[in-house]
Amino acid sequence: MGEDLELNFEEYALWSIIAIAVISLAYAVFLIRQMLKESEGTEKMKRVSNAIRAGANAYLNRQFKAIASIILILAVALYLTAQDGGIGFGRATAFVVGAIFSGTIGYVGMNTATRANVRVANAAKRSLGEALRIAYRSGAVVGMLTNGLGLLGSVVIFMIYRDRAYEVLLGFGFGGTLLALFMRVGGGIYTKAADIGADLVGKIEKNIPEDDPRNAAVIADLVGDNVGDCAGMAADIFESYEVTIVSAMILGFAAFGHMGVIFPLLVRGIGVFSSIIGTYAVRVRSETENAFDAIKRGFNLSAVLSIIGFAVVAVYYANDIRFFWATLAGIVLAIMINYTTEHFTSIEKDLVGELAKSTKTGAATTILTGLAIGLENSVWAVIIISATIAASAVIFQSAGALAIAYGVSLTGIGMLTLTGNTIAMDVFGPICDNANGIGEMAKIDRKARRRLASLDAVGNTTKAITKGIAIGSAVIAAVSLFQSFTQMTGLAGIRVDRVDPLVFVGFLIGGALPFMFCSLIIRSVGRAANLIVEEVRRQFREVKGLWNGTVEPDYARVVDICTISAQKELIALGAIALLTPIAIGLLLHEEALGGFLAGAILSAQLLAVFMATAGGAWDNAKKMIEDGLYGGKGSDAHKASIVGDTVGDPLKDTAGPALNPMIKVINLVSLLIAPLIIANEQMTPQVIIAIIALVAAILIAIWYSKKEAYIGVDESILRRR
Amino acid sequence: MGEDLELNFEEYALWSIIAIAVISLAYAVFLIRQMLKESEGTEKMKRVSNAIRAGANAYLNRQFKAIASIILILAVALYLTAQDGGIGFGRATAFVVGAIFSGTIGYVGMNTATRANVRVANAAKRSLGEALRIAYRSGAVVGMLTNGLGLLGSVVIFMIYRDRAYEVLLGFGFGGTLLALFMRVGGGIYTKAADIGADLVGKIEKNIPEDDPRNAAVIADLVGDNVGDCAGMAADIFESYEVTIVSAMILGFAAFGHMGVIFPLLVRGIGVFSSIIGTYAVRVRSETENAFDAIKRGFNLSAVLSIIGFAVVAVYYANDIRFFWATLAGIVLAIMINYTTEHFTSIEKDLVGELAKSTKTGAATTILTGLAIGLENSVWAVIIISATIAASAVIFQSAGALAIAYGVSLTGIGMLTLTGNTIAMDVFGPICDNANGIGEMAKIDRKARRRLASLDAVGNTTKAITKGIAIGSAVIAAVSLFQSFTQMTGLAGIRVDRVDPLVFVGFLIGGALPFMFCSLIIRSVGRAANLIVEEVRRQFREVKGLWNGTVEPDYARVVDICTISAQKELIALGAIALLTPIAIGLLLHEEALGGFLAGAILSAQLLAVFMATAGGAWDNAKKMIEDGLYGGKGSDAHKASIVGDTVGDPLKDTAGPALNPMIKVINLVSLLIAPLIIANEQMTPQVIIAIIALVAAILIAIWYSKKEAYIGVDESILRRR
Repeated sequence: MGEDLELNFEEYALWSIIAIAVISLAYAVFLIRQMLKESEGTEKMKRVSNAIRAGANAYLNRQFKAIASIILILAVALYLTAQDGGIGFGRATAFVVGAIFSGTIGYVGMNTATRANVRVANAAKRSLGEALRIAYRSGAVVGMLTNGLGLLGSVVIFMIYRDRAYEVLLGFGFGGTLLALFMRVGGGIYTKAADIGADLVGKIEKNIPEDDPRNAAVIADLVGDNVGDCAGMAADIFESYEVTIVSAMILGFAAFGHMGVIFPLLVRGIGVFSSIIGTYAVRVRSETENAFDAIKRGFNLSAVLSIIGFAVVAVYYANDIRFFWATLAGIVLAIMINYTTEHFTSIEKDLVGELAKSTKTGAATTILTGLAIGLENSVWAVIIISATIAASAVIFQSAGALAIAYGVSLTGIGMLTLTGNTIAMDVFGPICDNANGIGEMAKIDRKARRRLASLDAVGNTTKAITKGIAIGSAVIAAVSLFQSFTQMTGLAGIRVDRVDPLVFVGFLIGGALPFMFCSLIIRSVGRAANLIVEEVRRQFREVKGLWNGTVEPDYARVVDICTISAQKELIALGAIALLTPIAIGLLLHEEALGGFLAGAILSAQLLAVFMATAGGAWDNAKKMIEDGLYGGKGSDAHKASIVGDTVGDPLKDTAGPALNPMIKVINLVSLLIAPLIIANEQMTPQVIIAIIALVAAILIAIWYSKKEAYIGVDESILRRR
Repeated sequence: MGEDLELNFEEYALWSIIAIAVISLAYAVFLIRQMLKESEGTEKMKRVSNAIRAGANAYLNRQFKAIASIILILAVALYLTAQDGGIGFGRATAFVVGAIFSGTIGYVGMNTATRANVRVANAAKRSLGEALRIAYRSGAVVGMLTNGLGLLGSVVIFMIYRDRAYEVLLGFGFGGTLLALFMRVGGGIYTKAADIGADLVGKIEKNIPEDDPRNAAVIADLVGDNVGDCAGMAADIFESYEVTIVSAMILGFAAFGHMGVIFPLLVRGIGVFSSIIGTYAVRVRSETENAFDAIKRGFNLSAVLSIIGFAVVAVYYANDIRFFWATLAGIVLAIMINYTTEHFTSIEKDLVGELAKSTKTGAATTILTGLAIGLENSVWAVIIISATIAASAVIFQSAGALAIAYGVSLTGIGMLTLTGNTIAMDVFGPICDNANGIGEMAKIDRKARRRLASLDAVGNTTKAITKGIAIGSAVIAAVSLFQSFTQMTGLAGIRVDRVDPLVFVGFLIGGALPFMFCSLIIRSVGRAANLIVEEVRRQFREVKGLWNGTVEPDYARVVDICTISAQKELIALGAIALLTPIAIGLLLHEEALGGFLAGAILSAQLLAVFMATAGGAWDNAKKMIEDGLYGGKGSDAHKASIVGDTVGDPLKDTAGPALNPMIKVINLVSLLIAPLIIANEQMTPQVIIAIIALVAAILIAIWYSKKEAYIGVDESILRRR
């Protein structure tokens, strides 16, 4: 092939990827239109659904407003980080675009989900199959948006900046990541504060069922599912999708030139088609069929199609079968993580059975057994990820260090190829949860409610699986970024050694960061939940006619309290994630910063899986008992299982998932400041003053977040709505 | 000074250190004799005390028997690790001696404690001051033994092997460390299984007070305090004492020749005198004085004396003030860790108050708040240790890499100079706990029991402080060993990098190891506790006359069940600690093994402090409520606080402390096999077979430990006693 032909093929490939991205977005619009044609059911159902949508949008609006100024300040800072004005402008713009894309996915996704929920509830009156179809395809909307916007952004940036694209891509990745951090943490705090608050007063104090309309926190709880599992998770996976592409493009360009850049984009393009085709395999024909099996069928079909596509592209475009093996390793990784997640958290497995048994001897043994299960799975997850990294090393062994690093990032590309399916499965969760809640509140017929309950249970499983993939992909993405860091700083590697004990210091502090993060988040949820408890109690006490159902509670006020306190709690956490790597880099230099990143990746991975697993196992152990085991609902075993579930909730839905964006933020910040640190080996007084200011800012932020939140919330703000 | 004179001074110094070691041992014998002169009180008291001693000795005898064969096998293996037969023999012998020394400290210490307890109980009838004096000085016995044997072994080995001593010292360190692992883990499982078993049936099911003589597990519980806090903790600190000396001698010899070896020995010698003098400051003159203040007074006096001594030796012997700063940094580190431990776990501080408040909303919020507190303190501990390492780097900045590494190990030397005081404070705990239990069971007069209860509470605080020092010193010791590893393998350092992703793999797996360890240990405690619960229930059900107090329960049988199941559980844990570094080293080579060690040190440090802190905070929150807060005993808040305490117990007394010897075992194993790994870069079929066998052994051990223990315990064995 002549060079001209190759170049032409490259142009052609890039334009087709843009076309694929557009197809992906068009398909999302098509799915939305299809969904909107469905009937919304009764007035009562519409009212509940509207309340959820209003609450969710109120939350997002406030969140976006709060973040907007931070985004603008950081855009200016990013402009300054680049030595070249043109690149600086591109980077700042890409950063804003990345953030806007992530925000759009969250916004559209949540509005789709909150419109789909009532339609699913209504369709359940007719058949299980129709309810499943609407719910899954509405989830697919978010998946296709993620694919489309992720691909579009990366390709356009590459086409504009070509050989210097990686400098701009960093900005794009950072925009998505930063928004994900805020959406994940804010959404996580919101959802669990509402959940715990609703349960503590409703289920435990007042002894009324979940989703009882007299509970003032019930709408906030339903909003929370959207805010956390829909907007938060979509932003999280969008970010991994973006970041794996960015690091694969950086490393691929260094190792294989343009081919190394285009191959991952083509692989992702294949994923779009596989996911679209997979959508149509998700259907049940009768009431007795299992909805989860149908979803799995869709996933497997997409996986097989993708693998065939990988092989074709590797052989005919890259002329290198190793590229195929590396992407295949990514899909295998995803499947293995699904398998262990299921083994440790699924109702049908021994371990959750053992956990359920431990509830018989009380809450303490329940907690201990859950902790042991979580700790163990974190080990297996590490072993699987290590095996994948080792596999990349073996595959590219002969091609040198850069190619091996590229191999690891291709694993991430392969793993997230099926993002369309993964996000569809995830968003399916809150849609069914909400549909079930709407069914409960609008008191629709029993048969429909049984169908909705079964879909809700399937949603719990799919959510758990997505969580495993999110964590696994976050670690692979972080490792790839870490490798890009060593590539960009020109370090041969990060030495943890006796020559420079400061590297060990960086390493220890990096490892401690996730612990600090989790500690602060758990406290945040606790503080926010306390506010909800007080408000719900107050309404029961003060609002006449509420208890006998003649007067509706003030749902909006609880939604507002959740929103405000989640925003407040974000400040310290965001500050820590953004400022710690800068402080370490400036104070201890780039090798120590490398140690810091390595330590943080390690302990975040361990903690995240530990928390997700323990939380999932406790949740399902409770379900087993609610299904009648060991005395069923109301028994002492049930009470112990509720303690386990309540402890697990903020671990699995707030603290654990927040670590995903956190490790990517610190890696990206490190990448962005690396040139600055290297240029600044000699500390000028200005740098020292800057560091002192940074540390002071971190300390103030921590102090601020520790203040009891109800002192800080201004009653007049709460009343305004 | 001429060279002859210097050499003469060196010999003179070495002989004086031997003399100091002998003085230390003689002082221990003197303290034992003094204690034995005290009266044992009534027949009833003697009977209880004898039962505790019999149980404790039965445990230790069985443990020693079980370990003996492992020690012998490993001694042969160690003989083979050295290339030189003479060194091999010395190393194997030193290993056995190290193990015997550690065992002796445990054995003598436990027998001292179990003889002292009844005398303390009896002295409490007379005055608080006498009870305090007997209890503290009996604790000091164990401290002086540790000092004496630790110094004696190191100096004698150095005097025999001189320039090659470090090869033999490794064996000495390993012997102590291995025994510590078994004593710590076995003792930890024993003590918490007995404690949880006694509480679950006694306090919760039967509603009888702690230490009620009708509870069949009450003697096992009292035995457990000795087995865990006395024998286990003494072995743990002895090991850190030994290992810091060994690594300081290795690094000191490499950096500063003989002077680098003798300086740490002299510093430790000073510690012996300071501790002896400090003993006499621990006294109260009236009933209103605070016993804890008296103990602190003793500690502070010893600290001041030591610091003066350090300065003298640094200036007049080493002629290098930097040596003084490094050892001083160690003492500062110990004080800082005491401070943070107190801040996060002490009753008088805000955090435990907040935790106590969270019990009002139930067990779930209690657990969550405790987790947050534990996670946070692990961060501060890391920051303090990092600051110490950074300080060593600054102090020896100009002297090169080896000197910096030596500086870190001198910090460990400084930190453990006051081992005499530290261990005395620790062993004081179980003595007072037992004395209080004996007082309860023998129903002595109320005034004496009040005195004993107050001493027991002081013991809880001193135990918590010792735990902090044990963890801190374990990390410093492990970092020093890690540096010795890089020194011995001739690696410039361990690179976590893109050049060799296997290092990252080793690093991830190393980080996962402590999680696996904790998971297995928590399950072990659960299984063993289940056996106790069943046995205590059975006795209440089947033994006639037990409930109304006319017949004594079969205490010995419960002691036996505890002993057997603790031994069984040890197998998998010991196998993992010994075999994993060998497998990693052989499979992935020395750089990856270095990554493995770094990862393990990091995550062990974080987990250990997390667990110790959360456990301590829950324990004290419960105490606050039992003292009358939020409804006091029997209230819902109290029940929630019991859940917290029960969850915290195996974390703080079994899983967390077990990580201390674990990280030292893997470091020492790595040091011992390093030459083998370097020689074996090319894998022979034999090596591959050996690795497969090792991995199989690990898997079998894990599988074995997971079997439900009550299937495995042979009833006939239990009945034999």
